[in-house]
Amino acid sequence: MKRDIHALIAEMTLEEKAGMCSGAGFWHLKGIERLGIPSVMVTDGPHGLRKQQGESDHLGVFKSSPATCFPSAAGMASSWNRELIGQVGVALGEECQAEDVAVLLGPGGNIKRSPLCGRNFEYFSEDPYLSSEMATYHIQGVQSQGVGTSLKHFAVNNQEYRRFGIDAIVDERTLREIYLASFEGAIKNAQPWTVMSAYNKVNGAFASENEYLLNQVLKEEWGHEGFVVTDWGANNERVDGLAAGQELEMPASDGVNDRKIVKAIQNGQMSEEVLDRAVERILRIIFKYVDQKKPNAEFDLDEHHRLARHVAGETMVLLKNEDHLLPLAKGQKLAVIGSFAQKPRYQGGGSSHVNPTRLDIPLEEIKKLADDPASVIYAQGYHLDRDDSDAALVEEAKQAALAADVVVIFAGLPDRYESEGYDRKHLRMPANQEQLIAEISKVQSQTVVILMNGSPIEMPWLAHAKSILEAYLGGQATGGAIADLLFGEVNPSGKLAESFPIKLSDNPSFLFFPGEGNRVEYREGIFVGYRYYDKKEVVPLFPFGHGLSYTTFEYSNLYIDRKEIKDTNTVNVQVTVKNIGTRAGKETVQLYVSDIASTVVRPVKELKGFAKVDLQPKESKTVSFTLDKRSFAYYNVEFKDWHVESGDFDIMIGRSSADIVLSERIYVESSVVLKIKVDRNTLIADLLGDPQRAPIIQGLLHNLQEKMDGMFGGDNVTQSLGEGAKDMVAEIMNVVPLRMLSFTSKGEISDQLLDNLIRQLNEC
Amino acid sequence: MKRDIHALIAEMTLEEKAGMCSGAGFWHLKGIERLGIPSVMVTDGPHGLRKQQGESDHLGVFKSSPATCFPSAAGMASSWNRELIGQVGVALGEECQAEDVAVLLGPGGNIKRSPLCGRNFEYFSEDPYLSSEMATYHIQGVQSQGVGTSLKHFAVNNQEYRRFGIDAIVDERTLREIYLASFEGAIKNAQPWTVMSAYNKVNGAFASENEYLLNQVLKEEWGHEGFVVTDWGANNERVDGLAAGQELEMPASDGVNDRKIVKAIQNGQMSEEVLDRAVERILRIIFKYVDQKKPNAEFDLDEHHRLARHVAGETMVLLKNEDHLLPLAKGQKLAVIGSFAQKPRYQGGGSSHVNPTRLDIPLEEIKKLADDPASVIYAQGYHLDRDDSDAALVEEAKQAALAADVVVIFAGLPDRYESEGYDRKHLRMPANQEQLIAEISKVQSQTVVILMNGSPIEMPWLAHAKSILEAYLGGQATGGAIADLLFGEVNPSGKLAESFPIKLSDNPSFLFFPGEGNRVEYREGIFVGYRYYDKKEVVPLFPFGHGLSYTTFEYSNLYIDRKEIKDTNTVNVQVTVKNIGTRAGKETVQLYVSDIASTVVRPVKELKGFAKVDLQPKESKTVSFTLDKRSFAYYNVEFKDWHVESGDFDIMIGRSSADIVLSERIYVESSVVLKIKVDRNTLIADLLGDPQRAPIIQGLLHNLQEKMDGMFGGDNVTQSLGEGAKDMVAEIMNVVPLRMLSFTSKGEISDQLLDNLIRQLNEC
Repeated sequence: MKRDIHALIAEMTLEEKAGMCSGAGFWHLKGIERLGIPSVMVTDGPHGLRKQQGESDHLGVFKSSPATCFPSAAGMASSWNRELIGQVGVALGEECQAEDVAVLLGPGGNIKRSPLCGRNFEYFSEDPYLSSEMATYHIQGVQSQGVGTSLKHFAVNNQEYRRFGIDAIVDERTLREIYLASFEGAIKNAQPWTVMSAYNKVNGAFASENEYLLNQVLKEEWGHEGFVVTDWGANNERVDGLAAGQELEMPASDGVNDRKIVKAIQNGQMSEEVLDRAVERILRIIFKYVDQKKPNAEFDLDEHHRLARHVAGETMVLLKNEDHLLPLAKGQKLAVIGSFAQKPRYQGGGSSHVNPTRLDIPLEEIKKLADDPASVIYAQGYHLDRDDSDAALVEEAKQAALAADVVVIFAGLPDRYESEGYDRKHLRMPANQEQLIAEISKVQSQTVVILMNGSPIEMPWLAHAKSILEAYLGGQATGGAIADLLFGEVNPSGKLAESFPIKLSDNPSFLFFPGEGNRVEYREGIFVGYRYYDKKEVVPLFPFGHGLSYTTFEYSNLYIDRKEIKDTNTVNVQVTVKNIGTRAGKETVQLYVSDIASTVVRPVKELKGFAKVDLQPKESKTVSFTLDKRSFAYYNVEFKDWHVESGDFDIMIGRSSADIVLSERIYVESSVVLKIKVDRNTLIADLLGDPQRAPIIQGLLHNLQEKMDGMFGGDNVTQSLGEGAKDMVAEIMNVVPLRMLSFTSKGEISDQLLDNLIRQLNEC
Repeated sequence: MKRDIHALIAEMTLEEKAGMCSGAGFWHLKGIERLGIPSVMVTDGPHGLRKQQGESDHLGVFKSSPATCFPSAAGMASSWNRELIGQVGVALGEECQAEDVAVLLGPGGNIKRSPLCGRNFEYFSEDPYLSSEMATYHIQGVQSQGVGTSLKHFAVNNQEYRRFGIDAIVDERTLREIYLASFEGAIKNAQPWTVMSAYNKVNGAFASENEYLLNQVLKEEWGHEGFVVTDWGANNERVDGLAAGQELEMPASDGVNDRKIVKAIQNGQMSEEVLDRAVERILRIIFKYVDQKKPNAEFDLDEHHRLARHVAGETMVLLKNEDHLLPLAKGQKLAVIGSFAQKPRYQGGGSSHVNPTRLDIPLEEIKKLADDPASVIYAQGYHLDRDDSDAALVEEAKQAALAADVVVIFAGLPDRYESEGYDRKHLRMPANQEQLIAEISKVQSQTVVILMNGSPIEMPWLAHAKSILEAYLGGQATGGAIADLLFGEVNPSGKLAESFPIKLSDNPSFLFFPGEGNRVEYREGIFVGYRYYDKKEVVPLFPFGHGLSYTTFEYSNLYIDRKEIKDTNTVNVQVTVKNIGTRAGKETVQLYVSDIASTVVRPVKELKGFAKVDLQPKESKTVSFTLDKRSFAYYNVEFKDWHVESGDFDIMIGRSSADIVLSERIYVESSVVLKIKVDRNTLIADLLGDPQRAPIIQGLLHNLQEKMDGMFGGDNVTQSLGEGAKDMVAEIMNVVPLRMLSFTSKGEISDQLLDNLIRQLNEC
């Protein structure tokens, strides 16, 4: 950039600078003509452009220009394919350039805490590592085209219910390990030009005026260089927001809030430097776009549609495939049943709602790929705008099913069931669809169910379907992609980026979601998704990472380069995957790390690496992972840092979180000794764990031994607790605080002696 | 009382008064001879006296005088028999009089949060109502004899692990509804002479110096009239404790802490009135005992042993009884297997450990009741002091089993598995016992398992036992009681006062028990025990309230006197129970209340009444319950009071928490309108719920309708979300905060207009 931004700011009036901190109308930043600052446009994303040229809104209500509608994030993450996400990003960037859009609002980095969240389809995963990786590649793709992104909604926006007022109460370890971690990697690795703050409060302060989130964590700790924009209408107290690191308010506030900024500076409530820094961040992004603007940019609609189809094929997850019913054999008579086959649900409602350039109809695409289009019959089965069954439609569907060799039922959630703006109340599909599946099963056992939905559903009908393909919201080419997968033109390779619970009440947030009044407590803490199902031994319907293929992969040769490391070292892990089936296919190798013993509560295992490999029949490849301190660490809230406890860790390779195929143990040694401050209430056990302090306290205990024996040792104990109780007694003794030594030693240790001891312990 | 306590205090020196606030030695309060204040004795309880005359300790290590050992609290609560608990209390009081004991330390009112807690056998239940009722009758029984009790451990002492330092973090609603409620009823209804504060911290402050718990809740709100004594050695900072309402430190601190009190008053840190009030409370209790002391009191050892046997028979729970294997038919050959049959576990370890006056040996008692003692053969089966199997013992047991018609296996937890002082690590019995049951099942299908344990166990061997009798820790007459039940001399009538989970990880506290470092968070909140299993739809091994009988009861005629009440009214509930079997038996009728809809999270149902009835064959009785406001209320933390939300409630009658047999719905209307303070962030939904404010906000919304329709209503919505989405849109609109009206109305509502509106709303 050749401009001198500081000089430019120096030329601006106070009012102009304050004005730069809010939009011009709904979708534009302000420009200042006399200074050559253009007014640039931002539009909703993330899986396609929603560029509104007529009336504007933030819920996808009014029309927008046609744009390619790619699969939404729920599906994108199921591809576990970083490069593919990057390609979609590039295509989106091209469309932005063609439409003169400076920033595409997205991707969404929020964690899927509850499957009920109405906006889950826009988010990637329940796992912060996977989510962060997907966001990284999306951002890098878009930004490679000279167009910005806006990683949203920062942070802890995990429900739609009362989102404008809800206060999300989350302990710091959970914030760091789950909800912030999902953003952290993407910020550090991809530097999104902007970050969008969330509507809600986090631990008492609105995300849009949260000093901890914006200034401290995002800017200072993670080094974010761009600006922070409010979610549309999220501004609360403008001056507080600006002070906390909230540079841009959107949309326009008709000058009202700009004037508040001016007043705050004039009356000394806020330093002008804060405003200058904010304006600088905004200007740098505006010019970043201006400098990379491609005049007369165009994009290839057909090419982007083909990409959308290719991508959709990798986002869909084959959940079940009994007797290898899929792929469909040639020459079979097919009954395609369900309204979704003609009116596919391919994207979610709300701000991400795209006006697609075209739309593949599943039924038509199936007919195209079938040997004989006439062998494909269709029955509607149910009404999409009602939940009750229509007996005539059900009967028609049963007749169609009877006449066919295989039935393909399209089912899922209608638009009204999930959208930005509200949460689901339950995990069921409409009753008429569930009933239809049950009725069909009475006449036809060869049944495939294709699901169109943005988030998990309960499947009381599971036994009635031999095969289930989760198509998620597959974008405008979903119809073609489904046909590709059904007929084996494409081999399924998606794996779930979220757990499907058997029932809603199994979900970890169930008891406290969506909160009471304006307060929602994240009481499950770090136990989100598979971290909970693993630990609580709750079997999910389909586990995180699960997804079938038409071929089979074999894992071997797990190799770890070092069996003992310091936490400052890295470790290299390799594993070989072989396609032992007869079709080409792709497999996502998942690497989990498990801490064998810890003084803090930890998940059974956590995803710390993954790689997607493409394998021809008989081909094998070796994939490689590098693990570092963070792969083994938890966030220590007392010492405000990531910490690894010395000890054993298992490195696990899995086909899914529930199917670990190879595992090896290594020892990681901490490079840090956490030193607690000793006082009268420090427990002996906590001193015995410190190599420098243990000898002092052991010496003391030894001197007291005779007294202690009377109380806690020797024959008296076995009289009371029986043989074998000595370990227990040691445990009792170890959790005595120093102040109780006087009591347990019957006065042997005086207050003064204790004070001296504490001083001595604190000095080493 | 004829004494003038105030005059007495006026005569005491400052040092004497401070001295009254700590003990003389381990088990005595101080006396002052010149003032005629005697030194009275307190001893451990609660299910028997542990009067130590030689060396003293607080963990049941040293010897004590013989006393009747009654069943421990886990079993007592399973009787659900208020009168029976009262009778035991009377017997304990008689023994105290005979031994010159002024206060029997107990009962324990702590809630069974986790089945791992090593001291659960000393506590009654996971349900605060049941726990509180049991404590009430225990206290009334003892105190009817002129002897005091000490309700303990106040409060939130729900684990042994790190109990001297752990800080229990519990939200106030959970405290009030669960952990304090368990004490509240007993304090209010039975006025225990003393309350024992717990070792642990509660929300940051030690229970022994917790202003909220001691002064505010216990004394001011609940009106406790006696004194508070520290758990032995629990004193932290003596002056802080005294100020917070901690009158008595035990045991003696050799004058050290007395001098701290003197110093604090001398240097003005504490008012002498605080000390005077403490001394007054202590003196009143001392003289209460002195005035009721029965000279030369004696008790009938045989009579108390008979009572112990009778009581034990009601505390045992018949968990399973396939094919009516129990009661044992006459003339069968019995194999009694398991070391516990000869060395019964009949009480827990720690401070409650009693030196019994005699001990019934189960094997001998079984032989006594068998038609032919020679038809009862015995095999040891396993070693109690080891966990591994002894092949020879197993083989011997199998031979015995083969030779018998029915096998009775004694199993359970050895002393070293559970005790005061440490928690269990898992819920399994020793491996050798589990293996024995599996081995026996290979040769004998007619198997009864008798369990001796203080808290729930996992039962991977469940299918191998046709009948299971949970004998808990049944006291010194447990052997006789077991024989009575086996042979049908007594009909089982115990019901579980706690849920038995299938596996440990099912327990609600599992993820966060026993905490990290010195902090344990009660994140499951109010969802303790069946409140959790109900809500989460987790099927327990045996549900709360479950227990079988040798006869059958039929429920009918649920009658509720009013179907609509104000929360200031009471309601009477009646139900008829009939014994339709051929044996006399007792049934515990359980009444649960279920709030049908609520703005706060509530359990599916909560126990609010129970009654135990004794029925001859064909006899029927009608039991009656009175419900009041508290039966329907939750604790509102914002308004710091119990509150009933107007709405429907189901009154449920159950054989157990999982077996509701009759249910009726009533409407309860709140007498209180909770008025929130309105500000810019108040949500519209929260105003629409207020009958006075709703019209104002509705008027405003009506005026804005046209603008709103553009954004949220009309055809645009159906375009995006499809038909049937209008309810959803209303939901979106309702959760908008007032400050966003400006945004959603596109500037129609200015800041000033909003301020006026807020003023208007706050005024009505």
